[in-house]
Amino acid sequence: MSTLSTQPYKGTRDFYPMDMRVRNWIFSRLRKTLRTFGYEEYDGPMLEPFELYAAKTSEEIVNEQLYWLVDRGERKLAIRPEMTPTLARMVAAKQNELPRPIRWFSIPNLWRYERPQRGRLREHWQLNVDTFGGEPITEDLEICQVIVAIMQGFGAESGYEVRLNHRGVTDYIFRELLKLTDDKIPTIGRLLDTAPKMAPGVFAASLAKEGLEPGQIELLESLLKKDACTRLAKQLGDNPHFKHLMDLTAKLDALGVGTFFRYDPSIMRGFMYYTGMVLEVYDLHPENNRALFGGGRYDNLVGMFGGNALPGVGFGMGDVTLRYFLEINKLLPDMKTPRGIYIAHLEDEQFMPAQRLAQDMRHRFSDADVDVPVMTSLSPDKPRKIFTTAEKLGARAVVFVGPDDVKKGEFQMKDLVTGVQTQGPAPTLMVTFMTTYVNETHGV
Amino acid sequence: MSTLSTQPYKGTRDFYPMDMRVRNWIFSRLRKTLRTFGYEEYDGPMLEPFELYAAKTSEEIVNEQLYWLVDRGERKLAIRPEMTPTLARMVAAKQNELPRPIRWFSIPNLWRYERPQRGRLREHWQLNVDTFGGEPITEDLEICQVIVAIMQGFGAESGYEVRLNHRGVTDYIFRELLKLTDDKIPTIGRLLDTAPKMAPGVFAASLAKEGLEPGQIELLESLLKKDACTRLAKQLGDNPHFKHLMDLTAKLDALGVGTFFRYDPSIMRGFMYYTGMVLEVYDLHPENNRALFGGGRYDNLVGMFGGNALPGVGFGMGDVTLRYFLEINKLLPDMKTPRGIYIAHLEDEQFMPAQRLAQDMRHRFSDADVDVPVMTSLSPDKPRKIFTTAEKLGARAVVFVGPDDVKKGEFQMKDLVTGVQTQGPAPTLMVTFMTTYVNETHGV
Repeated sequence: MSTLSTQPYKGTRDFYPMDMRVRNWIFSRLRKTLRTFGYEEYDGPMLEPFELYAAKTSEEIVNEQLYWLVDRGERKLAIRPEMTPTLARMVAAKQNELPRPIRWFSIPNLWRYERPQRGRLREHWQLNVDTFGGEPITEDLEICQVIVAIMQGFGAESGYEVRLNHRGVTDYIFRELLKLTDDKIPTIGRLLDTAPKMAPGVFAASLAKEGLEPGQIELLESLLKKDACTRLAKQLGDNPHFKHLMDLTAKLDALGVGTFFRYDPSIMRGFMYYTGMVLEVYDLHPENNRALFGGGRYDNLVGMFGGNALPGVGFGMGDVTLRYFLEINKLLPDMKTPRGIYIAHLEDEQFMPAQRLAQDMRHRFSDADVDVPVMTSLSPDKPRKIFTTAEKLGARAVVFVGPDDVKKGEFQMKDLVTGVQTQGPAPTLMVTFMTTYVNETHGV
Repeated sequence: MSTLSTQPYKGTRDFYPMDMRVRNWIFSRLRKTLRTFGYEEYDGPMLEPFELYAAKTSEEIVNEQLYWLVDRGERKLAIRPEMTPTLARMVAAKQNELPRPIRWFSIPNLWRYERPQRGRLREHWQLNVDTFGGEPITEDLEICQVIVAIMQGFGAESGYEVRLNHRGVTDYIFRELLKLTDDKIPTIGRLLDTAPKMAPGVFAASLAKEGLEPGQIELLESLLKKDACTRLAKQLGDNPHFKHLMDLTAKLDALGVGTFFRYDPSIMRGFMYYTGMVLEVYDLHPENNRALFGGGRYDNLVGMFGGNALPGVGFGMGDVTLRYFLEINKLLPDMKTPRGIYIAHLEDEQFMPAQRLAQDMRHRFSDADVDVPVMTSLSPDKPRKIFTTAEKLGARAVVFVGPDDVKKGEFQMKDLVTGVQTQGPAPTLMVTFMTTYVNETHGV
């Protein structure tokens, strides 16, 4: 028989226990923050009808990146490349029953056929947060607050910036200030979107190549500058969408989180769903200066299902870029912190007493706020070997079960971090262990 | 534009918030129990190379039930129909680094093209628990303890039964007692496997049709009877595999959990991986008398990757049958229990004060053990409308923010369950709320 490869499919990840601890820690922080704002978790199937994506998802994704198949009943299905179509379908199905405002989140795994590179994988998890059924200013404000709360939930009090724009302002600049024609807008929009990554001069040259006049080019270049807001304020002062953005940032200031936000008229977020506010969150770390995630407001997510228009706002946050952010900013806890107790027997005769002790300890720990792993040894060992195994297994403490201990009903426990030894029956060991343990593991 | 369907793909589920609460509650219970035994969570990609399943998975699954596709790089991939091949691949990749014993679990979603029916869906989640690298008796004992602990973690102190068998005992019965030839064994095994579902007499008739003698038929029928163990004890007394089962059940008795286990020589669990102990857990509820889940011991899971033999034992537990078990035994908590606080403003002028109050409350709740949703209203409302919205949103309490409250810095809070009203600044409201709330929600 030929030997199979042990490697996962290109662009995907195996989550060994240490990676899974990180993933679970990140997801549990996200869930905790979102719950405090009243967001409810949802999920849908991994496979959806192909047409769901053909209708609204970008052509690039559908034509080049979608994983799709035909089932044994001749239905064409796709593995979800994004969550929004599933969200729209689910909301549309119960549009009249769901209480407003709808505050929902999900952390699905998504698939896209991409050339794997740093920050881009074929399978990734993406937090999706959306709210519907309120008013634009209050919903936009809430979504901005949620973003800051999520970052604070990870301990990030700086190191990132949320760049805000509004599709209506962009439209006004393109049509009224630049006098661009409909056919030019998508091209110029895409150039503006990628401009920050271009070498100096390339943006202007590209615009000239598209036939733009020097005045138009100058205005477009000014959008990329830090003081764009002040420059534009005169020309945009009466635009209601610009006023919306100014109102939004003023309210964020009043809530004490304004420093995380900045108006940036170059933010585009593609040309698909969005119709109002758009946002993009940037990592400001010099080694990782890139977009972390983004989102925006849409007028009518559920329209393709034939229901009433339902405006909303949301964002999506990928796990790969988020993990880089947390790593580079040293915000991940040490997942290798020893945890739990290793209960080992010295001779075959103590196997069952050790099992009973473990059962007793698990029972005593079951009401604790922190889960305490109680691992038993599966074969008798000498003390030296027991220490080695306990360390390899990442135990915090080791309990020895020898013939005398069983007789007395008292056991030796050694804390492998502090070196402290304790002797006593199960309740004594438990109290000693919990006292030092709980404050150190942070429930990881 | 034609209207798309809002229904999920056949045989799959949408998890609206209430269903997601159930799923999260079930998964968190599973995780808690498994962590107390020192099991570590892992996960792998949704797609694996097709050959991974072609090698070991049953022909029925590969030929009739697998969802597969060819990617844009001409690689043939399958959506995982079971987790064991991924587990084997991952363990094989790091066989020499992983500390023993390996105790791992995962809760993947799996896909099979099945005719949807009660308890069988095309997408389901399945808890997978496995341990490797120890000794058969101690590992088997631990897996049996884990099963009981999981059921106890859900509050199930009865209502199910774990039926144990051993592939070596079955082999001895087939070859030595029944003198079956190699070519007959798979057929007779499959008949025995499905015998409990057959109408009276059908099993015997089927065996006769296969050419079995009356003596052989009588012995096979006796395997299905409750007293099979006593009947067989004489004939099997010296068989080491039978001794293993008797030793195992004696140890389970000594740990006080023996009542949940029963030797049942008719348990087969298919003919694939298993080589030692096999087990099947049955729901004993009269309305749901069926197999809940099962597992067993395998000699060499990683062999197809060319590593050293690595014996282990494990089981898989599907979420659909588990949920039925919990529902029918009334073990699910009420997910509709009101939770959290709804903070509503009466006039536009109190929108920002309400937002600030919410921010303050969330901050104060952030150290609590229980996540408290603090939901704000997104537009001003009259008190009557505020009550209705709070109830629809499932809030436990509502706080009104009117002009006088803002002036005084004191707010009215009403507990929607007890009717108790409290007035005061944020800290007072928080203490009052937590006192009644924490003990009632159980962290759901």
